[in-house]
Amino acid sequence: MTAEHAAPLQQNAAPQTAPPQDVRVGVIGVGRMGADHVERITRRIKGVRVSVLSDYLRETAEKVSATAAGSRVVDTWQEVVAAEDVDAVLIASPGEFHREQVLACIEAGKPVLCEKPLAMNPSDAYDVVRAEAEAGAPLVSLGFMRRFDVGYGELKDALEAGELGTPMLLNCKHRNASVLPGFTDTHMVYDSAVHEIDAISFFLEEPVVSVQTVMPRSTEKAPEGLHDPLLFLFRTASGTVVTDELWVSTDAGYEVRTELVGSKGAATVGQESGMVTTQQAGSRWGGQVPLDFRPRFIAAYDAEVQAWVAAVADGSNIAPRSATAWDGYAAAAVCEAAERSLTAEGAVDVTLQERPA
Amino acid sequence: MTAEHAAPLQQNAAPQTAPPQDVRVGVIGVGRMGADHVERITRRIKGVRVSVLSDYLRETAEKVSATAAGSRVVDTWQEVVAAEDVDAVLIASPGEFHREQVLACIEAGKPVLCEKPLAMNPSDAYDVVRAEAEAGAPLVSLGFMRRFDVGYGELKDALEAGELGTPMLLNCKHRNASVLPGFTDTHMVYDSAVHEIDAISFFLEEPVVSVQTVMPRSTEKAPEGLHDPLLFLFRTASGTVVTDELWVSTDAGYEVRTELVGSKGAATVGQESGMVTTQQAGSRWGGQVPLDFRPRFIAAYDAEVQAWVAAVADGSNIAPRSATAWDGYAAAAVCEAAERSLTAEGAVDVTLQERPA
Amino acid sequence: MTAEHAAPLQQNAAPQTAPPQDVRVGVIGVGRMGADHVERITRRIKGVRVSVLSDYLRETAEKVSATAAGSRVVDTWQEVVAAEDVDAVLIASPGEFHREQVLACIEAGKPVLCEKPLAMNPSDAYDVVRAEAEAGAPLVSLGFMRRFDVGYGELKDALEAGELGTPMLLNCKHRNASVLPGFTDTHMVYDSAVHEIDAISFFLEEPVVSVQTVMPRSTEKAPEGLHDPLLFLFRTASGTVVTDELWVSTDAGYEVRTELVGSKGAATVGQESGMVTTQQAGSRWGGQVPLDFRPRFIAAYDAEVQAWVAAVADGSNIAPRSATAWDGYAAAAVCEAAERSLTAEGAVDVTLQERPA
Amino acid sequence: MTAEHAAPLQQNAAPQTAPPQDVRVGVIGVGRMGADHVERITRRIKGVRVSVLSDYLRETAEKVSATAAGSRVVDTWQEVVAAEDVDAVLIASPGEFHREQVLACIEAGKPVLCEKPLAMNPSDAYDVVRAEAEAGAPLVSLGFMRRFDVGYGELKDALEAGELGTPMLLNCKHRNASVLPGFTDTHMVYDSAVHEIDAISFFLEEPVVSVQTVMPRSTEKAPEGLHDPLLFLFRTASGTVVTDELWVSTDAGYEVRTELVGSKGAATVGQESGMVTTQQAGSRWGGQVPLDFRPRFIAAYDAEVQAWVAAVADGSNIAPRSATAWDGYAAAAVCEAAERSLTAEGAVDVTLQERPA
Repeated sequence: MTAEHAAPLQQNAAPQTAPPQDVRVGVIGVGRMGADHVERITRRIKGVRVSVLSDYLRETAEKVSATAAGSRVVDTWQEVVAAEDVDAVLIASPGEFHREQVLACIEAGKPVLCEKPLAMNPSDAYDVVRAEAEAGAPLVSLGFMRRFDVGYGELKDALEAGELGTPMLLNCKHRNASVLPGFTDTHMVYDSAVHEIDAISFFLEEPVVSVQTVMPRSTEKAPEGLHDPLLFLFRTASGTVVTDELWVSTDAGYEVRTELVGSKGAATVGQESGMVTTQQAGSRWGGQVPLDFRPRFIAAYDAEVQAWVAAVADGSNIAPRSATAWDGYAAAAVCEAAERSLTAEGAVDVTLQERPA
Repeated sequence: MTAEHAAPLQQNAAPQTAPPQDVRVGVIGVGRMGADHVERITRRIKGVRVSVLSDYLRETAEKVSATAAGSRVVDTWQEVVAAEDVDAVLIASPGEFHREQVLACIEAGKPVLCEKPLAMNPSDAYDVVRAEAEAGAPLVSLGFMRRFDVGYGELKDALEAGELGTPMLLNCKHRNASVLPGFTDTHMVYDSAVHEIDAISFFLEEPVVSVQTVMPRSTEKAPEGLHDPLLFLFRTASGTVVTDELWVSTDAGYEVRTELVGSKGAATVGQESGMVTTQQAGSRWGGQVPLDFRPRFIAAYDAEVQAWVAAVADGSNIAPRSATAWDGYAAAAVCEAAERSLTAEGAVDVTLQERPA
Repeated sequence: MTAEHAAPLQQNAAPQTAPPQDVRVGVIGVGRMGADHVERITRRIKGVRVSVLSDYLRETAEKVSATAAGSRVVDTWQEVVAAEDVDAVLIASPGEFHREQVLACIEAGKPVLCEKPLAMNPSDAYDVVRAEAEAGAPLVSLGFMRRFDVGYGELKDALEAGELGTPMLLNCKHRNASVLPGFTDTHMVYDSAVHEIDAISFFLEEPVVSVQTVMPRSTEKAPEGLHDPLLFLFRTASGTVVTDELWVSTDAGYEVRTELVGSKGAATVGQESGMVTTQQAGSRWGGQVPLDFRPRFIAAYDAEVQAWVAAVADGSNIAPRSATAWDGYAAAAVCEAAERSLTAEGAVDVTLQERPA
Repeated sequence: MTAEHAAPLQQNAAPQTAPPQDVRVGVIGVGRMGADHVERITRRIKGVRVSVLSDYLRETAEKVSATAAGSRVVDTWQEVVAAEDVDAVLIASPGEFHREQVLACIEAGKPVLCEKPLAMNPSDAYDVVRAEAEAGAPLVSLGFMRRFDVGYGELKDALEAGELGTPMLLNCKHRNASVLPGFTDTHMVYDSAVHEIDAISFFLEEPVVSVQTVMPRSTEKAPEGLHDPLLFLFRTASGTVVTDELWVSTDAGYEVRTELVGSKGAATVGQESGMVTTQQAGSRWGGQVPLDFRPRFIAAYDAEVQAWVAAVADGSNIAPRSATAWDGYAAAAVCEAAERSLTAEGAVDVTLQERPA
């Protein structure tokens, strides 16, 4: 850039309006996910900058702050929420702190985008739902980023346009190359299945009423304590059945596929795509399976945060199609039931509290 | 957003660095394409804002300026280039002004992103190449946005990694649903084929040495004066052959497909993808063909401008893989030969001036 | 053909061996399916001809016989089995007669290819298994033609070669455009699911130990008394889980898809294929969904009968990979349990008699 | 099969008609291709048997005859044509003998299926066309088996139904894993391109009027004397352009793809299909490329011979959609021009003799 960039301007004609102020975001927790968000906000998301951030590890916070010009580090998450130069808060701390941190944001009247989960159990999550309802303003967005994936959006559009008729079945597949040691069936519920559990809210817009676990025999590669693959069967209030196949030690890569079977037609997103090659080695045609979720969902994260920033800037605070506190509560309730179903015979019922007006 | 947003801040701790200043872009020409760029810069591209803009139609300029807070309108493009609050210039005016405007930017030492074409003929384009070389700094980026398409990037990566061996054939297909009345063979060269002509520079990194037009019989839907479809055959210096099939009145939609045939394998990008449905009507499986280029290339435009802004901000001025003035000159030279080939027997040679160091 | 064809031959040199005699097949039941088999045997299957046939409706039998030169009609199926010019029997009569007719063939020592089902209940089917075992010779083939589909064969090959590792999940989808009025959940079991039930035997080579029905809400197009779609969950002895989605009023066409999820990889057959078009109408790319099973499985029927004829001719009587009486018995047992599962809570156990040596 | 099979029959009721006599085929030349045909006729094709065969190598003939019960060996191809127990002739000898052998069949009034080429040059091929016209009866079928491929048939159907409008472009790709040493550009014309040259006759039903060779730089794997890949451009009488890309040392496998671009839509056959797997190795999804033409076209060979046998049996002698002597002559004329185009500048004209009524 040329040298005069930093020089003070002497504008020969006043613009009609002042340039818009960036939304100033405070970030709580800048481990891998939080640091990703800081990088996203700093480099790719329009109309926003990170003003304040905190982390359990001060050193981590300093390091991340150094990559986000104009940001400063504070000692506690409470200071992030309270800071005058924080218009909205992004929470990427460990899940056990989410309830308390989101409640503080609500109390401060600041919009918040909280990474999943909303809370560690349905009761805690419901506290957030109630608090937001009492605050009387939409404030809480939840980080289910798949809602902002182009493919998910196409399927949602087709459903809303009535092109697929009545949803009858939703078939989901979720595959990972591998998981860390210590990953158990419970992680399968809360880390993996939770995404499809939110997909049910997103696509079908009605509560899950029961869940059943079906356990095939496991791959030899499954870590101790993990049944892999697993199959969950969900049933919604109107009787749509959702199959969710989870397989997290494929060694192949990251694959997420969703088929909606409606009375007027079936539609699938997440099929193999991208560059197709024919190669000598093995005489195969085909494409690459991405090693992790980034190639598949990185644009969805960007779109999610950009949509949130736009919503904060225009005062609506929650982007259209974004997951809300209620979705987070519903997901927590279904996860809790799914966890019980791991060791139950047959289907386990899911019951939800009343939804506040 | 909450009410305190506009209030003056009293920061309890100074950030380590000042928030980065946005790159201030002056936009010349805000017809459809320029207005798109203003909207892009204003809503989606990070680290940049439109500060000044101009248009042949003052009223258009005023209307577009009103959508870009902080921008102001000036009467002439010369004022855009000269403005102190313009760090870099984006040119989206009609092609016949590009040479003069880009030269002015070079003279002012301001980075410029110019929509194609760089100039109306090879000689004019070469003037720009020379002027930039004499200025001694990289300043000129050319708006061949396909270079920033994910699929194009994957193919480029595979080539650079040597996975496909020596390029032997490049097969391109370019299809549009329809064109405006008055679209002729010449437009086919300068508006459509020009994109594949730049793809040759991008993928093969060597000059085209000859071009031949092959005219099949035309569709009944072809407007007067247009041979549709058309086939161009290009040959590069090392002997790679490029077939470029253009068909612009398909009635179906927008399709761009590229296959690279290398000595170690073939790779195709731009195949059908997206949501796949099975529908009763006609008992067909498949997906939608987009009506225009937007669904296919809108992300490439965004990525292009974001990359340009990053390059301007870091002083390199031209993004990696971006088209340069030389690419623009080469494209002009090949287009001019392609135009002559429309009425020639056999292949027409392309000769290029020397490339300045 | 030239006129001398029918003339007596005066061979100037005796061939080394006599031309092989055609296997003479007796066909019991020449309704739609049986007539198809007569046409197949008469026009496409090598080394075989229909010598005798019978049908409940004498007139139908006469009409079909007229299309199969060299065949004659007899009054009863017993005469077909007994005829000296019948080397092997093909049964395409209604299912309630199969047990008795197959038993008669066993008693006559004649190889038989019986359309599914082998019998109307597991007990009757087991009678056949025992009778064949006592006869001491392989005689009974069952008409599960999918085993002879190229795609099924590829998947079987991959499994046998160990390329997919341990089978963990088998996901089946079975869709029809529509069914006749009066088609009920019970038909869903015995006419549709039965094919996937045999696929379990074919691919996994182990018994099903339980079955559970999952009923999503139905399409508005489902006839009275039919839950459509339906989902069956099967579990095999070693713990492989099979999901079988059946949807028989799609209005779209015939689709059968099978995915095997093994510990070393997943493989799918039956995906969309064939000619791909891009058409103006609706701006869609894609292909045709066949209206019924013919385009998908007609070659499998041919291959099945050809393989059976070859087995009869070489004395092995049952083709490799063909379904046997035991497979028919197992299918009957699983169908009977699946039928009970339609109205049961949770999984219904399947128990099998001992398999005769 | 049971012991009584060979026993004389005492039929208790005469069939209405005698079983049909098999067409007795004489085979000239039983090298690899001829032996394949003998095996096909003997095991898979209905209504036909090999009665007489000959080969340049008596020993080869004896060996092949031993696999075809009822066949005998004669010393010369003349004896095959003349044999009273030969109703029709299949020629699979080297191409230089075809003209003479087909002429002899015409003279004997016997239907003949001749492997390509019909003759070694256009003039010789035209002799056959004229002789057949003078004989006044359809007798000659030519072995372009792709016409009997399911995909080719679908595309032909779509064209005949008018679904694709006016054909404007036909894009063909033909790839082999490798070729034998000594394979030259001339073989590229006569062994590889000849198939697409016949495809032009099949799909477009009009003569080629010119051909141009385009030579990209070659793969390092190309044998001495071979330009690989090669591109031929054909133009038909009405102005349809055909691009034919040939690449015969891919190391990957056998691929044949055909796209018809018509004024109402484009259609492609021969795309990748079959079982799709996701495998750990390399984290790739996709399918297998067949090593040679067999998996792709074996069914077309069977269908071709079955259709020919049916035509011989019903006296029409040439199957619908089969290549005729005229197609063979046209192919020879185009090949000859294509060979000349290998060393010519620009397009080489093709001229055809008049077609006899």
